[in-house]
Amino acid sequence: MKKQEPIEMKLVVKNTSLDAQEKTIVILNQEDLAALGVFPMNRVIVKKGAYDITCIVNSSKEFVKRGEIILYREVAKELRASPGDRVLVTPRPELESKKFIHEKINGKELNYEKIKSITDDLLERNLNDLELAALITALKIRGMSKKEVYYFTKAMVETSKRMNFYGKVMDKHSIGGVPGDKTTLLVVPIVAAAGLRIPKTSSRSITSPAGTADRMEVLANVEFSAEEIENIVKKTKGCIVWGGALELAPADDLFIEIEHPLSMDPLLIPSVLAKKKVMGSNFVVIDIPLGHYTKVTSMNNAKELARKFIDVGKKLGITLKILVSYGEQPIGHSIGANAEAKDVLETFATHKSPDLIDKATSLAGELLEMAGKKNGKKLALEIFNSGKAEKKFREIIAAQGGNPDIQPKDIMLGPKRETIRAKKKGFVVAVNNAALVEACKIAGAPENKAACIELYKKIGDTVKKGDPLFTIYSAKTHKINEAMKLIDQTRIFEISKKRRAPVKNMVLTVFS
Amino acid sequence: MKKQEPIEMKLVVKNTSLDAQEKTIVILNQEDLAALGVFPMNRVIVKKGAYDITCIVNSSKEFVKRGEIILYREVAKELRASPGDRVLVTPRPELESKKFIHEKINGKELNYEKIKSITDDLLERNLNDLELAALITALKIRGMSKKEVYYFTKAMVETSKRMNFYGKVMDKHSIGGVPGDKTTLLVVPIVAAAGLRIPKTSSRSITSPAGTADRMEVLANVEFSAEEIENIVKKTKGCIVWGGALELAPADDLFIEIEHPLSMDPLLIPSVLAKKKVMGSNFVVIDIPLGHYTKVTSMNNAKELARKFIDVGKKLGITLKILVSYGEQPIGHSIGANAEAKDVLETFATHKSPDLIDKATSLAGELLEMAGKKNGKKLALEIFNSGKAEKKFREIIAAQGGNPDIQPKDIMLGPKRETIRAKKKGFVVAVNNAALVEACKIAGAPENKAACIELYKKIGDTVKKGDPLFTIYSAKTHKINEAMKLIDQTRIFEISKKRRAPVKNMVLTVFS
Repeated sequence: MKKQEPIEMKLVVKNTSLDAQEKTIVILNQEDLAALGVFPMNRVIVKKGAYDITCIVNSSKEFVKRGEIILYREVAKELRASPGDRVLVTPRPELESKKFIHEKINGKELNYEKIKSITDDLLERNLNDLELAALITALKIRGMSKKEVYYFTKAMVETSKRMNFYGKVMDKHSIGGVPGDKTTLLVVPIVAAAGLRIPKTSSRSITSPAGTADRMEVLANVEFSAEEIENIVKKTKGCIVWGGALELAPADDLFIEIEHPLSMDPLLIPSVLAKKKVMGSNFVVIDIPLGHYTKVTSMNNAKELARKFIDVGKKLGITLKILVSYGEQPIGHSIGANAEAKDVLETFATHKSPDLIDKATSLAGELLEMAGKKNGKKLALEIFNSGKAEKKFREIIAAQGGNPDIQPKDIMLGPKRETIRAKKKGFVVAVNNAALVEACKIAGAPENKAACIELYKKIGDTVKKGDPLFTIYSAKTHKINEAMKLIDQTRIFEISKKRRAPVKNMVLTVFS
Repeated sequence: MKKQEPIEMKLVVKNTSLDAQEKTIVILNQEDLAALGVFPMNRVIVKKGAYDITCIVNSSKEFVKRGEIILYREVAKELRASPGDRVLVTPRPELESKKFIHEKINGKELNYEKIKSITDDLLERNLNDLELAALITALKIRGMSKKEVYYFTKAMVETSKRMNFYGKVMDKHSIGGVPGDKTTLLVVPIVAAAGLRIPKTSSRSITSPAGTADRMEVLANVEFSAEEIENIVKKTKGCIVWGGALELAPADDLFIEIEHPLSMDPLLIPSVLAKKKVMGSNFVVIDIPLGHYTKVTSMNNAKELARKFIDVGKKLGITLKILVSYGEQPIGHSIGANAEAKDVLETFATHKSPDLIDKATSLAGELLEMAGKKNGKKLALEIFNSGKAEKKFREIIAAQGGNPDIQPKDIMLGPKRETIRAKKKGFVVAVNNAALVEACKIAGAPENKAACIELYKKIGDTVKKGDPLFTIYSAKTHKINEAMKLIDQTRIFEISKKRRAPVKNMVLTVFS
């Protein structure tokens, strides 16, 4: 049924400073709202010149006079609007994509046109949080056909700009869940030192004490334009930058905004592969950490996920290897940006964290083999042991505006600190990753990069009563006290009389 | 894992006038927000004295200084807070009920404790829209066991106050979907005239041109306190009032706020039965209209729904009869509050709308039989034909503060009007209910009670070319013009050479 011509209202922008993150909200006088025939929390379209955006409306008697409108920051940004500007406001017509979401709820398979329509409305902020949460929940419960997974990826790719990397482009991704996973900081220089291009974009922490972009930021800048990244990679073959600055696959970012607070990620595969595709990456290793606290907790689930990744990768022209890795304890001896950057420098210098070296050279080795080199892991280890990887890492630091001569002692932790000691002798048999992560966050991570944890013992190690197990660092006494409350209440290190052998080979299985 | 002690911040209320309907939002200075360790769109608990409420936080640099807080209207109302008051703000800890929502998403059956925990957190505004939308979607896709349906009803009842009606209490409910359904305005006086108590609470329109409370409001007041309603029913045996003023089963209202914009109602049965239970009703007829445009569109679905209603009703001690009724065209000759009130008065006076009489006496008849009377429909018809029902209706109008002598001519429609005429001769075989509803809303319903439609022809009627089919009324020329655009584009009356017999018995089936 065709709808009537919409009513239109001209309003003057009064203020543009209110902030509700990405939410697009406007506030109108309640009489103007009534005249438009819309209610608070309804959607309206706000236009200025060539720009338009769908917004949630709130109303006020006092804050906004008739004829005026308050734009939240995100709305003003999208419309390029400043106080005093005139905007046009109209009620928003019904959406077709809402019907397609209901089809998925009802168990129907969605074709590409429907998925593209949903993605377009998502990007134009036409779909509200309720509708998007319903979609994410339906995708989670109903599952997706292989086709649907591919279509979501395709829609994310087609609504994104692309980086200018052509030919052989290597990449890696970890689906996450293991604390202190700084493997990328070793993999990128090893692969680049072998002469291959690896333009790595990483994320900042969302819920963890540090993301790879946070770790790298201790040593260099991570925010660059697409052109700057292309220049860095031209010079050094590799980079480790924050992907968020590039606005690649923006639909993915908007889906994640809904998925994250819901603790669901049915769009994991499209999310990962779309980001890779728009970078131009065509040889990618994906790391699935496996452990009690990781996202994937059984080998069967890892296998199923790996198969789907590989299948969708094929359709996109991306060759994938999926590595399932040991994820029962933190990688290396550190959690939190500063401690992890320090751990990486120490591992280059003194081979401090053998598990980190094994994991990084295994992943890098797979990438080297995908690019046609023989004995990948051996070659990766040679590059690491010869000092070429460290040299390359310092080149990349320099190219990204950091100090290439930085030393572990230059990186400050704390300054407040507490060291936790063993209450009995025995062998470390388990580590409570979740409690370590929580304590590190209470201490101030990820906002404060110096809030972190250094570990002295790992699974398989012998401890004597009174041996230091780990030190927690924070900028503030009250934060470290809060973290200590949690630590005192939790058994973080499980110490037993019977030794559990440490896992030497960090990669458990490879799917390709 | 036990969480750390929360940080607490004292703030002064600056403004309480912003309105986002029921949404509980506060605005803090962005530095205060950072000091609390929360981000815009996170949740905080705001306390004042004995009151506390969970709110979404927005941030601003300009609008709010450090140490200040803006409370949206709903927040100020809940906290009894005014500008200048001091409130305490703390970040909100994780919720157990979120875990239970995930259990439902993952296909597990929820026990009563879990459903009660979800309901409690809903009522305390602890669950956000995303979480609630995920729950509603999961309930829709996974379905609910009989136990779960009962538990949701029970949780809604146990978190509500109750009306003081004891003994035999009659009630009716229509699940809706057929326009112009003013049946309640006849059922209540018939049943009350038979000496039975029927304290009917109704809703105002949400998406339709008029709800029963809107219709009754043309003739009398509909907003009363619980005590006032008890007095009215003591006097007249019946009432027709707005349920919203009573805050009965408030959890149901909050679920509906999420269900409605998502166009899903998995909690239909708990919603209906909780509202009845807290009224004290124990003999209830439920009307399921069946038609192309109604909520239920097949007899099989109606039967399934009826069985569930009856089952849960039993557990609650409510005897139910479920009537499936003919819903292919509007009931009577009117859509929109004023026209419908007029139609009701005319039907009492001149038996204008026989379908309305048949439907009302059928429903009332079932109620009379449930209360132990014989030949219910016959008795209901006698009460109607004798004028006792009209007399009782006018008594109820008087008890609710209306004019008991009101006549059809006292009710104004319009004043702008357009009459739509037949373009060819033949028989009416179908009516586009959805288009009639839409046109009536464009004309100004439900906000303007005089915006309405009067129908002159119904299915089975003969028409000559040029015969008036219906008149649309509006207060505003531009609104009636907009409505006429829709009417011109749509075939609202289907006129055929072959007659389709009108349905005489409005009730198609009864389940009990």
